[in-house]
Amino acid sequence: MSLNPQYEEIGKGFVQQYYAIFDDPVNRENVVHFYSATDSFMTFEGRQIQGAPKILEKVQSLSFQKISIVITTVDSQPTFDGGVLISVLGRLKCDDDPPHSFSQIFLLKPNGGSFLVAHDIFRLNIHNSA
Amino acid sequence: MSLNPQYEEIGKGFVQQYYAIFDDPVNRENVVHFYSATDSFMTFEGRQIQGAPKILEKVQSLSFQKISIVITTVDSQPTFDGGVLISVLGRLKCDDDPPHSFSQIFLLKPNGGSFLVAHDIFRLNIHNSA
Repeated sequence: MSLNPQYEEIGKGFVQQYYAIFDDPVNRENVVHFYSATDSFMTFEGRQIQGAPKILEKVQSLSFQKISIVITTVDSQPTFDGGVLISVLGRLKCDDDPPHSFSQIFLLKPNGGSFLVAHDIFRLNIHNSA
Repeated sequence: MSLNPQYEEIGKGFVQQYYAIFDDPVNRENVVHFYSATDSFMTFEGRQIQGAPKILEKVQSLSFQKISIVITTVDSQPTFDGGVLISVLGRLKCDDDPPHSFSQIFLLKPNGGSFLVAHDIFRLNIHNSA
C-alpha cells in the first residue's frame, strides 16, 4: 500500500495505449482486456455496468466505424493502494457526426506487474456547452 | 472493505453540499474540512497539491467573489473500500467572466461514519469546445 512515484507516466502511457486500441475498429474489442472479469465498473452516459463480459457487449454495441479522438488534458494522481486516478478531457468525432467534447475517468488498480481499470466513467459533454 | 449500496445518494448529496459551501464567499473556506490534513490530493488546472493546509491556500487564492455553478451531470460509482468515485460536469460563471464548462472528480474515502475527499481533480473545459 504505497504511492507509485511513476503515476504521471503510467497515466499518460495508459491513455495513449487505451485510445490507440479503441480508435481502431479492428482492435477496439481488445480494450476489454484492461478490465476485471467480475469487478470493474463502467458508467457510460449514465448507465452503469460491471464486469468484462458486459463491458465487451457495450463496446460491441457502439455503432460507429470511424472515430477520431483528440486528447486535450490528462491529469493523474497516485492512490494509496499503488493505483492511479486519471481524468481525461478531449474531443471525439464519430463517422460523419459533429465533434463532441467528452470526459473520461479511469481508476487503475495494480494487478501483478500491470494495472486493471477498476473504474471507468465516460460522458459526452453535449449538454454542457459554455 | 465492501461496496456501499448508497453510493448514488452519497455522491449526489456530497456534490450538493460541497458546491453550496463553495458558492458562498463567506463559507467557501469551509470546504477545507472535507479534506485530510496530510493525504488528500487536489489537482487544480493541472497543478497538484497535497494536504488541507495547501488546499486551503488554493481556495483562499481564488480571486472571484461571486460564482454560480450549474451541475449538468453527476455520475457515481462505489469503490471496494466503501468509498465513492464521483464525476461532475457542469458550468460555472465567476463575477463578470463568460461562463465555462468544467469537470471535477472526487474520490471519497470512508472516515468513521463520514467521508473525506481523498482525491479532487478540477479542470475548466475552455480549450475543449466542441
